[in-house]
Amino acid sequence: MIRTPYLLFLGDAPDALAAKVAQGIADWRPEFAVGQFRLPGCKADLGLPDMDLETAKAAGVKTLVIGVANRGGVISPEWKHVLIDALMAGFDIASGLHNLLRDEPDLVAVADAEGRTLHDVRVPDVEYPIANGVKRTGKRCLAVGTDCSVGKMYTAIAMEAEMRKREMKATFRATGQTGILITGNGVPLDAVIADFMAGAVEWLTPDNDDDHWDLIEGQGSLFHASYSGVTMALIHGGAPDALILSHEPTRTHMRGLPGYDLPSLEALRDLSLTLAHVVNPNCKVVGISVNTKALSDDEANAYLAEVEDRMGLPTIDPFRQGAGRLVDALVALDEPSVLAAE
Amino acid sequence: MIRTPYLLFLGDAPDALAAKVAQGIADWRPEFAVGQFRLPGCKADLGLPDMDLETAKAAGVKTLVIGVANRGGVISPEWKHVLIDALMAGFDIASGLHNLLRDEPDLVAVADAEGRTLHDVRVPDVEYPIANGVKRTGKRCLAVGTDCSVGKMYTAIAMEAEMRKREMKATFRATGQTGILITGNGVPLDAVIADFMAGAVEWLTPDNDDDHWDLIEGQGSLFHASYSGVTMALIHGGAPDALILSHEPTRTHMRGLPGYDLPSLEALRDLSLTLAHVVNPNCKVVGISVNTKALSDDEANAYLAEVEDRMGLPTIDPFRQGAGRLVDALVALDEPSVLAAE
Repeated sequence: MIRTPYLLFLGDAPDALAAKVAQGIADWRPEFAVGQFRLPGCKADLGLPDMDLETAKAAGVKTLVIGVANRGGVISPEWKHVLIDALMAGFDIASGLHNLLRDEPDLVAVADAEGRTLHDVRVPDVEYPIANGVKRTGKRCLAVGTDCSVGKMYTAIAMEAEMRKREMKATFRATGQTGILITGNGVPLDAVIADFMAGAVEWLTPDNDDDHWDLIEGQGSLFHASYSGVTMALIHGGAPDALILSHEPTRTHMRGLPGYDLPSLEALRDLSLTLAHVVNPNCKVVGISVNTKALSDDEANAYLAEVEDRMGLPTIDPFRQGAGRLVDALVALDEPSVLAAE
Repeated sequence: MIRTPYLLFLGDAPDALAAKVAQGIADWRPEFAVGQFRLPGCKADLGLPDMDLETAKAAGVKTLVIGVANRGGVISPEWKHVLIDALMAGFDIASGLHNLLRDEPDLVAVADAEGRTLHDVRVPDVEYPIANGVKRTGKRCLAVGTDCSVGKMYTAIAMEAEMRKREMKATFRATGQTGILITGNGVPLDAVIADFMAGAVEWLTPDNDDDHWDLIEGQGSLFHASYSGVTMALIHGGAPDALILSHEPTRTHMRGLPGYDLPSLEALRDLSLTLAHVVNPNCKVVGISVNTKALSDDEANAYLAEVEDRMGLPTIDPFRQGAGRLVDALVALDEPSVLAAE
């Protein structure tokens, strides 16, 4: 659990895209994002107050979050200087960098001396159990994709935001490093040992109120040869009550796998349901989320209408339209039992 | 790669079952099993020559293999004494124990001083790649089960033995600790980091001769909530040309998961093929392997005949009948292309 609120370290980001993790925090957890720290030459700007460490301390910040990719996988002397100052000033540090904070002897020494914590969110810090397959209370929704990187995280976190707006009980459950930095906790599922993957997902989505929804961040794709085992563990560990199908319509082949075609939404629906029914016979596909970023407004609307008609499911782009209709579909899923109880 | 041949350490095994790993080596790789080392009170006997370390050294042994489970997960002083003597005498040590050799400081110190290697086969010692999904040359066969522990390893290794008898090109590819100790190499797949599971299987089954078969050791089950992600990675990393369905007919629920029924062989066939076709559109289910140990001869024969009739596939118990008919089915798979080429 990373202590909040955050000072978002943007370093010398060459452009806005390099700071997309920080942008995600500012977008989805504005209450955590007290300020930004920029080095000379930084080309990213989240529109947050620029703060030095002293100001951030006075504003109640607990953790400096490295919300930016570094160049060449090396923590530069300029960065190192700020990070050590931050530890000395009493901040923890959280990072999703490939090169780990814990592998930097000077950071480790200062953190130990000062009693501070270094969070490398790419690496699990929990001994997860083996999955026991026992039915939990509460409800769970999982987005599954025709491919990797088609908008599954965005869909889940947009649904959480919409549900909180409606005062429903909802928790986004992060399974990747960006999601973990945004929310302050989660499971870095792709770094978990094989035998414990499904158990880690059970651990992440424990018993809850009957009317509470976990929105589980999806990973990989059942049709992606490199990462399908991770997706499988999400389905069998998550035991979802509801599935969202996620898709990006302009992809010409599976990400990183030339020669592999994307599956149809029908194939994704059928395979996902078959697997989900092993652990939750009541699981249903409730909607479709499409990343239409590469399409014009007209193209996007036409595509969404065509898919909705073909699949008979609410089909939206949560970035263009919000996740309201997907949340409506979750609500509708609960209605028959409400009626039956009346 | 563990250096062969072996001296099989049986310790103070309370019964034959405790030494089943050593028994597996003696059964399947008799050329590696030069002798056995037993402590006072040992109740297991592989029928191999009892050897002290000096005799084993003279007989050319390279590695002492701990082919027995220890009691209470602790390496006892009696065991430790032998292991240190073995390192001093110039042997490597290989172990599948839960408690690792590398966590015993005295063993590590002596091994370092003597230039010997400690092999903990439960822990990967390779940095596996991420799977690239590229089609490899050669052929691959994988056993998939209705449940865990239904005889998938036995099936694969019995098929390898039969194929070598017929002078076919065949290699058993171990993915679990027993298999690794038997063959001297492999991937401990359940201990691999999630992102690299499928890549580890690709690494284990590289390009080979067109008429060479890898017999890949199966793990878990697509229908087992705890381990299904590992099975998925075997299918997508292995890209099998042939699948064998494995089953144990007296199981009342999934192993370790009360309340979970076993799937039908039809459901296993359909789901496995759907997933295998993502990476290998030509994959076929060629036979069924049943562990009938809990049945009488008459019951077993009746059950096998019933399943064979129902499924339309050769159905055998490799322990009772050998794996000949499964190998026939692999050979038949190749025949159409042979005919087409003539």
